[in-house]
Amino acid sequence: MSSLEVEPSGAWLSREDLDAARERLPILYVDAVPVRVDDKGSVTAVGLLLRASDGEVRRELVSGRVLYHERVRDALLRHIEKDLGPMALPQVPPSPQPFTVAEYFPIPGVTPFHDPRQHAVSLAFVVPVAGDAHPQQDALDLTWLTPREALAPSVLDEMDGGHGVLLRQALAHLGHPV
Amino acid sequence: MSSLEVEPSGAWLSREDLDAARERLPILYVDAVPVRVDDKGSVTAVGLLLRASDGEVRRELVSGRVLYHERVRDALLRHIEKDLGPMALPQVPPSPQPFTVAEYFPIPGVTPFHDPRQHAVSLAFVVPVAGDAHPQQDALDLTWLTPREALAPSVLDEMDGGHGVLLRQALAHLGHPV
Amino acid sequence: MSSLEVEPSGAWLSREDLDAARERLPILYVDAVPVRVDDKGSVTAVGLLLRASDGEVRRELVSGRVLYHERVRDALLRHIEKDLGPMALPQVPPSPQPFTVAEYFPIPGVTPFHDPRQHAVSLAFVVPVAGDAHPQQDALDLTWLTPREALAPSVLDEMDGGHGVLLRQALAHLGHPV
Amino acid sequence: MSSLEVEPSGAWLSREDLDAARERLPILYVDAVPVRVDDKGSVTAVGLLLRASDGEVRRELVSGRVLYHERVRDALLRHIEKDLGPMALPQVPPSPQPFTVAEYFPIPGVTPFHDPRQHAVSLAFVVPVAGDAHPQQDALDLTWLTPREALAPSVLDEMDGGHGVLLRQALAHLGHPV
Repeated sequence: MSSLEVEPSGAWLSREDLDAARERLPILYVDAVPVRVDDKGSVTAVGLLLRASDGEVRRELVSGRVLYHERVRDALLRHIEKDLGPMALPQVPPSPQPFTVAEYFPIPGVTPFHDPRQHAVSLAFVVPVAGDAHPQQDALDLTWLTPREALAPSVLDEMDGGHGVLLRQALAHLGHPV
Repeated sequence: MSSLEVEPSGAWLSREDLDAARERLPILYVDAVPVRVDDKGSVTAVGLLLRASDGEVRRELVSGRVLYHERVRDALLRHIEKDLGPMALPQVPPSPQPFTVAEYFPIPGVTPFHDPRQHAVSLAFVVPVAGDAHPQQDALDLTWLTPREALAPSVLDEMDGGHGVLLRQALAHLGHPV
Repeated sequence: MSSLEVEPSGAWLSREDLDAARERLPILYVDAVPVRVDDKGSVTAVGLLLRASDGEVRRELVSGRVLYHERVRDALLRHIEKDLGPMALPQVPPSPQPFTVAEYFPIPGVTPFHDPRQHAVSLAFVVPVAGDAHPQQDALDLTWLTPREALAPSVLDEMDGGHGVLLRQALAHLGHPV
Repeated sequence: MSSLEVEPSGAWLSREDLDAARERLPILYVDAVPVRVDDKGSVTAVGLLLRASDGEVRRELVSGRVLYHERVRDALLRHIEKDLGPMALPQVPPSPQPFTVAEYFPIPGVTPFHDPRQHAVSLAFVVPVAGDAHPQQDALDLTWLTPREALAPSVLDEMDGGHGVLLRQALAHLGHPV
């Protein structure tokens, strides 16, 4: 049951092909809620990415597509590394059971989750991060909020597509009052 | 959050298009383990389909693709109705959290799950069935086995692609000795 | 693995003995969130009990102790029947995995859950109710609220001991925005 | 929601008092399945304790009582440290949701779990261990088995009270074939 050791070359899709698939198939995603934990495993902070998009600054969770021939846990690691950097030391949960499944529809209102580009179905996991996390690529910043801070209505307002809902569902799953 | 009320017309894919997508994207599936429960919710029997395939008779769980614009719970209902008939009265679980996620790879041995046609990622649910279930379409029969009978090595041998493993994982999740 | 068929006579504790145990041991509880579901398994309503206590009217979930020699699922059924009546037809989940564990401490603030009488640890389940539910015993009423209504801040304010938090955690687990 | 910072002095029970409670109340336990994980979170080994008892050598999981005023995660840490030593660096899961609940009855055959001393209800967790684990107290040894080795029938035979069943349920939850 070791993970596939070959290059996921079949994963490559031209932009046109991906766009075509996005109009006809649900696309498999993973969402990760990065957290800091204390030595008892209690969550002390939640990591949110800050991104500029269309002139607005938005907060986001780690999120991305699962590629062809890619294990779900490899996709989680790849997207966390892409967003938080190679020194984040994420502890991907040992069980494949996600805490929830978020269904992003291209039409708003079908579910709490919305993605104008596609119908995406995302396996959502809470991932403790033990190392140094630094925003990568197009993220402006990574901020760590306490669970209480993360539940502020202003944080919910700063998150699009239902990421604020997913964050609160994660905190509820972690035993926090929501 | 009501389910989408329109025809999932975008879901239609030509056989060629689906074959092309299957070579380049993980395909989202659902697996259902149909069970009979007593009035305390304890599982008394597990339903397995009997199908003829390539001259062999095999046992199978309910399994199928999630269509474009289709909710996961609608896909579960559609596949259960397709296989067990319209009078099965399935009780789809109220939570979107699957008991496990099965990753079917086209190459055997990457995970316990294997599908030579595609890379499929399947959300697996235990679904109590309260009504009359009758095999539909190409299924020869539907047999109800007690959990103990379902754990017999011969049953595992009669199931392909890892369905026997998924059945045992479901029974473990239900609290049974495996 | 059939449930115990004998009278749980050992379960009897004098009031004094129970009080003594409550000062020295965590007491095992179950909490049930009664829900109505549609034919797709989506939750359409949540059932809350209305009780008068110390001159105040409060909303509550179904909650109670697990007795000596009693299975967890039998305790769930017994408390649901005690509060919702014998015609409620509860569908106790087939898996023993609770959606969360609520730790009620006699000192407020240790967790979101508080019980001045005892340290209780409660296994929490969402239980679909298919029949006629009528408040029993000391409950004044049973009201069914839509998930949206159940999330109103006023409902949270009307619930003591963390039951409002547990209700919201249940709704989050069910995929609702909280 | 910080953990209780006081001495759990109320936790003290005389041997007589504990014996009396054990005859009249279900006792709350935690079970931990210690695992080694690779950098992707995949389980590479399961840790089993070797104990001599009544002239027989038996394999065991980490298991113990939750004390009065003790958080479940503190009980997990305490029992892991007691059995694996202070350098084990256990990663207690951030969520309070156990992967299963094991009901140990004093009468064999009610469930797969049996404890002749008491009716114990145990919250079961998989706990990755990152540091050096050394058997403590009355354990003769701690052995790490691969998931495949842990599933050997001989290992099941060497475990009492249903620990072998719980181990297999844990491996099923982790996605392994059982």
